[in-house]
Amino acid sequence: MPKVQVPETDDNMRAFAEKVFASETKDEQVRDEISLFDVAEDCPILHQEMAHHLHADDNAEKRKRLQRSRTMAAPQAAAAPVVVDTPTYLEVPDFQRVAIVGDYAAGVTMDDFESSCKGLYRALTIREKYMRLAYQHFSRTASQFLRQIEGNTFKVEDEVQPVFNAPPKDGEDPLGTSDLPENLGYVARMKDGLMYVYNDAAAADKHQPKDLPHPDYSTFIDDMNFLIALIAQGPTKTYTHRRLKFLMSKFNVHEMLNEMEEMKELKMNPHRDFYNCRKVDTHIHAAACMNQKHLLRFIKRSYRVDADRVVHNLKGREVTMRELFESLNLHPYDLTVDSLDVHAGRQTFQRFDKFNAKYNPVGASELRDLYLKTENHISGEYFATIIKEVASDLEEAKYQYAEPRLSIYGCNPNEWGKLSSWFVKHRVFSPNLKWMIQVPRIYDIFRGRNFVPHFGKMLENIFLPVFQTTIDPQSNPELSIFLKHVTGFDSVDDESKHSGHMFSTKSPKPEEWDIVKNPSYTYYIYYMYANIAVLNQLRRSVSLLSSTIHLTLEVKLMLAVSLGMFFCLHASFLLFRQRGLNTFTFRPHCGEAGAITHLLAAFMTADNISHGLNLKKSPVLQYLYFLTQIPIAMSPLSNNSLFLEYAKNPLLEFHQKGLMVSLSTDDPMQFHYTKEPLMEEYAIAAQVFKLSTCDMCEIARNSVLQSGLSHEEKIHFLGSDYQKEGPEGNDIRKTNVAQIRMAYRFETLCYELNLIKEGLKVE
Amino acid sequence: MPKVQVPETDDNMRAFAEKVFASETKDEQVRDEISLFDVAEDCPILHQEMAHHLHADDNAEKRKRLQRSRTMAAPQAAAAPVVVDTPTYLEVPDFQRVAIVGDYAAGVTMDDFESSCKGLYRALTIREKYMRLAYQHFSRTASQFLRQIEGNTFKVEDEVQPVFNAPPKDGEDPLGTSDLPENLGYVARMKDGLMYVYNDAAAADKHQPKDLPHPDYSTFIDDMNFLIALIAQGPTKTYTHRRLKFLMSKFNVHEMLNEMEEMKELKMNPHRDFYNCRKVDTHIHAAACMNQKHLLRFIKRSYRVDADRVVHNLKGREVTMRELFESLNLHPYDLTVDSLDVHAGRQTFQRFDKFNAKYNPVGASELRDLYLKTENHISGEYFATIIKEVASDLEEAKYQYAEPRLSIYGCNPNEWGKLSSWFVKHRVFSPNLKWMIQVPRIYDIFRGRNFVPHFGKMLENIFLPVFQTTIDPQSNPELSIFLKHVTGFDSVDDESKHSGHMFSTKSPKPEEWDIVKNPSYTYYIYYMYANIAVLNQLRRSVSLLSSTIHLTLEVKLMLAVSLGMFFCLHASFLLFRQRGLNTFTFRPHCGEAGAITHLLAAFMTADNISHGLNLKKSPVLQYLYFLTQIPIAMSPLSNNSLFLEYAKNPLLEFHQKGLMVSLSTDDPMQFHYTKEPLMEEYAIAAQVFKLSTCDMCEIARNSVLQSGLSHEEKIHFLGSDYQKEGPEGNDIRKTNVAQIRMAYRFETLCYELNLIKEGLKVE
Repeated sequence: MPKVQVPETDDNMRAFAEKVFASETKDEQVRDEISLFDVAEDCPILHQEMAHHLHADDNAEKRKRLQRSRTMAAPQAAAAPVVVDTPTYLEVPDFQRVAIVGDYAAGVTMDDFESSCKGLYRALTIREKYMRLAYQHFSRTASQFLRQIEGNTFKVEDEVQPVFNAPPKDGEDPLGTSDLPENLGYVARMKDGLMYVYNDAAAADKHQPKDLPHPDYSTFIDDMNFLIALIAQGPTKTYTHRRLKFLMSKFNVHEMLNEMEEMKELKMNPHRDFYNCRKVDTHIHAAACMNQKHLLRFIKRSYRVDADRVVHNLKGREVTMRELFESLNLHPYDLTVDSLDVHAGRQTFQRFDKFNAKYNPVGASELRDLYLKTENHISGEYFATIIKEVASDLEEAKYQYAEPRLSIYGCNPNEWGKLSSWFVKHRVFSPNLKWMIQVPRIYDIFRGRNFVPHFGKMLENIFLPVFQTTIDPQSNPELSIFLKHVTGFDSVDDESKHSGHMFSTKSPKPEEWDIVKNPSYTYYIYYMYANIAVLNQLRRSVSLLSSTIHLTLEVKLMLAVSLGMFFCLHASFLLFRQRGLNTFTFRPHCGEAGAITHLLAAFMTADNISHGLNLKKSPVLQYLYFLTQIPIAMSPLSNNSLFLEYAKNPLLEFHQKGLMVSLSTDDPMQFHYTKEPLMEEYAIAAQVFKLSTCDMCEIARNSVLQSGLSHEEKIHFLGSDYQKEGPEGNDIRKTNVAQIRMAYRFETLCYELNLIKEGLKVE
Repeated sequence: MPKVQVPETDDNMRAFAEKVFASETKDEQVRDEISLFDVAEDCPILHQEMAHHLHADDNAEKRKRLQRSRTMAAPQAAAAPVVVDTPTYLEVPDFQRVAIVGDYAAGVTMDDFESSCKGLYRALTIREKYMRLAYQHFSRTASQFLRQIEGNTFKVEDEVQPVFNAPPKDGEDPLGTSDLPENLGYVARMKDGLMYVYNDAAAADKHQPKDLPHPDYSTFIDDMNFLIALIAQGPTKTYTHRRLKFLMSKFNVHEMLNEMEEMKELKMNPHRDFYNCRKVDTHIHAAACMNQKHLLRFIKRSYRVDADRVVHNLKGREVTMRELFESLNLHPYDLTVDSLDVHAGRQTFQRFDKFNAKYNPVGASELRDLYLKTENHISGEYFATIIKEVASDLEEAKYQYAEPRLSIYGCNPNEWGKLSSWFVKHRVFSPNLKWMIQVPRIYDIFRGRNFVPHFGKMLENIFLPVFQTTIDPQSNPELSIFLKHVTGFDSVDDESKHSGHMFSTKSPKPEEWDIVKNPSYTYYIYYMYANIAVLNQLRRSVSLLSSTIHLTLEVKLMLAVSLGMFFCLHASFLLFRQRGLNTFTFRPHCGEAGAITHLLAAFMTADNISHGLNLKKSPVLQYLYFLTQIPIAMSPLSNNSLFLEYAKNPLLEFHQKGLMVSLSTDDPMQFHYTKEPLMEEYAIAAQVFKLSTCDMCEIARNSVLQSGLSHEEKIHFLGSDYQKEGPEGNDIRKTNVAQIRMAYRFETLCYELNLIKEGLKVE
């Protein structure tokens, strides 16, 4: 089994990292230098000529002549097997490639090139390690190159993947509790902000935990410091900046040369077009998943039916809906979208505080409670109904899915119980919805109101109930059922608020963090990630090694990784029936605003992220997100109302360079106008950025890959080989993405990874 | 009755105009100088402060203090009556005004100021004259100032307005033929490209026409030459450029100061919000009024039902739909939006020719014939069905209307008969559709194929049938009925194709124009306008003066104007029952591309226009369009695919300056993605340009005013006083436009008109 090399601790590195952090990496200037490969964005060269040649009947002679430049052999992706009988739909039509002839040092000195490659290699291994530990996804192509660099061979069997539950079969009750696993009898406790699982209470008291490998705290901080140093390192910045410029120009050339050919593939592809490709709204908050008009109609309708129903507790007195509205001096009949006032306008730009207030209809938190909360006097009935109406629209539209976020705050350990009761009671299930849990980073508020004594308690409230239910599912059937439909955790709040704290070995432990000040983003992220990692270990498989042997950290980690692999692909067949619950991915909001370190923390810990705007500010991180193909759910309409004007959104640039972006709505209630918010999001991006159909279908495909849809659904929507990267993994009949595009992306990624391999060889 | 001063002919002017034309006014440079009133577009000053003060409870004291700058008395619009008991909804809340204290010469010398005002005054009288002659709309406020300048008093009774038919009453058949007027027995003939009406054939042979005043040819050319000279005149260019910059800055200041107050008005306005304001899609082509997905579905559905129906004549052989698709080597079952290939993409940018080809589904003109034509083997049944489906969506959405264009080419005199048969046979009627006739400017193609002998014949084919049917409605009941639902004429085709011909007194008459070359845009426009003017005279009222007295042109024109007024408002009660048919407005595509003279011709002849992008290039014309409030139907998504990138569209700028803009889709089939193209158009504009709700509702109100909706419908949708300008004419309960905004617009327009009055006084 391949070893994951654990980079050594380096005190100098740490010191340097701290210096860098102190000098605020977030505002670094990226100069826009002119590179050799620049092509003007609207360059009309060849456009017309190519159109003429390629659009007319396939004149093979003519096309041959146009292919003179096709001299580059694509670097061999070692694992790309030679398919002998390629099915027609997998064939990549001939297309024109961009070949770079000569040396590849890309305008930096050989020394700088080597040191950059070394740093990038190490960064890749760091992410790979943490992804495996937590059952999260790591790019297969990147893994293949890492194994080659290490002189090993990549094996598909070694891969670790998140596991989500398949949709219920016909006749199966999605909320059925008949097949809940047995109690394992373990005990879960929190220590230093991390959950530990023990054989029994006695072992717990002695702190003799079972072997569910945690990420090691000091190694994590070393890794983080290494990455902080790397992203500030001059040569690496230059190198990655130039590579990214090259990627951009290369895509522009590719597009000029092959646009027509890509389109031809799509035209030849029967039945499938952009409208009936599956697309997932990868980032949407449940409390704002309806549009403003929908909410308005619902409020009016509820009043017509329920005016005399007791719906609220107003300062200790139970009041009917009529009384509630009277106390607010308004009548639902008069309400309009304007007076409802939930839409973000010019006033919210750069004002996240004002934006948050928009969640209150008519500015009244009472109405938010009544209509947009799961916990209230009517047990969240209205909120459930609204969500089910949204879901029914999606089911009707058939090809659209959404991943709404519900909140767990960590104020109280029974939040999970209440949330899952709401879910089960109102049967808020839809095949077109995959659920996510969002944890707002607002410890400071809770601490200020004395809801929690310290940060550790907040973490315990978030994680302990899930661990307990995982150990004994039948102890809390509703939560067990709900967790079956939850696919991940999100971390949310205003990133532009700076905490001033730097996460380091000297940071207080969560139980010691009892000041009112909020911990830093990175601190939150680490503890969320670490607990999710252990939780996933517990959910997939337990009790193989109930040893109490004390292992060194190094060995533990390696074991963890090996176990991960083993269980995921082999043990799943052996032990699945024993526990084999679904895992959770970590998908925080990241890089919407704030320091660049947020994106660095997510690089280490997150399966994928939402927003990612600030990748613009760090070429090193942007290049790393490209190399590891970390999915980014972008919401340009949300950004347009909050942080960044539409035309300046980096979506197009990221997409062109080959970062894996998807489109999402964030908050239809606040941002969208039409009945189909996700289509509105795609339409506006298509119009403003002039995306081609192939671009749009590629983005839609990315959204399915990024989502918490199950393996079975992904096979159904993308094709049986969707886990393979490159054209092999693309079933154009289902995705409507041109094979030429897939080949271009794959070859481009391999080329960049290959450069790193070459850079390390030199050494 | 007030006289309309007819400007004298001036040979020097003409010579100058010809020189200017020769030197191609279209590319003149408008320098972007810094003016005293510049305010950066994203200036945050006061935003937050004002929000704080104004949004909080109305603290009257505080607000008083903020109103120190309110010192400017709005220039008195003489006709604005003092309303004693203003209904609440008409009250304009207090708001902060921008006062300019001191002299008003606006940075130009006094001489230049006077000469500019003189020129602008004359330009306004020219437009007023031609609007009245053709029963088209002229700004009431502008008329009031013109009368003041002339020392007269404006009377509402003097106004001329277009007349459209009210929607059918309950139970009334919109296509009923029972009440068609009697035959007048007249004879209509074309001479020199103009229609004349005679008492009988004998009078026609002697060319003794009835007194339906035409625009005089040489006066028209003189007027045009004057305007050409005016828009090229240095001082006027400077003056108007500075006024426009001032208007822009003034609006920005207004917005900063009053945004919150405007929003407050809207929030206080019950029942009404942007969603249930009436909005009209003021520019849409019937052949592309469905979106691509709709067309695709329709094709598939038609095949499932009608595969064995004979639907087409293929090279003389009648074929079934199955055979037709077989001959094209495709099966509808396999069709996708991609293979349908009707959507404009990056390939169509700056390529109108390629865009036109997109009207052919799958690139096959046979399918265009079958699905998108009124004349084909199945009598346009499918096309009618598709349009009725679009109409039914609009009826369901309730608040949306559209004005689709159907083509009359002028190849053949029986085109009108066929079109109206199609209309009546398939009952293509909907209360949410108002019909327009578009005439493509493609004489050159018809002449090249020998379809017509000369341009005069094309004009005759377009107008003669309408004149004949107007004289004897019962001779062609179908056409008479169809004309009841037609509200105007459009002139369409690629404006960027330059003809090279200059319209002048030396231009050949239409009957002499027998070369293959296309006449210029202006030549087309003049003959369209002149015939529509006469047609409207005929349709409103006839036979009062069947005199054969030969009047001088001057007198004729004055008589025409007086008659117009008289008939429209008095005679309508007397003679209405006698004829009193609806009139047609002239609403050409104009300023999408091509020379600036297009916009000049439309200024003289058009009730309103579509596109108007090139107003960017001439400050004088832009200012004139502002002063006369000529409605402009803009389609930024269409422009984005064809001529101008979205972010560069002047829509926002025009709207801010106070030009009267509406939003329209142009071709949903080619440009839009969602099921609600007009909402998509509004949503994208709102997002990209950050329009406020008040902005959007103002644009929606403009669209109703611009449209061919009847007086009755406009009263219903905008309020009973909609014809009044300023806040008096606005019923916020129906339009959701803030009275503060209306007052700002009105005061601003009056201020600018007043400047001209002052400039003329000095003299």
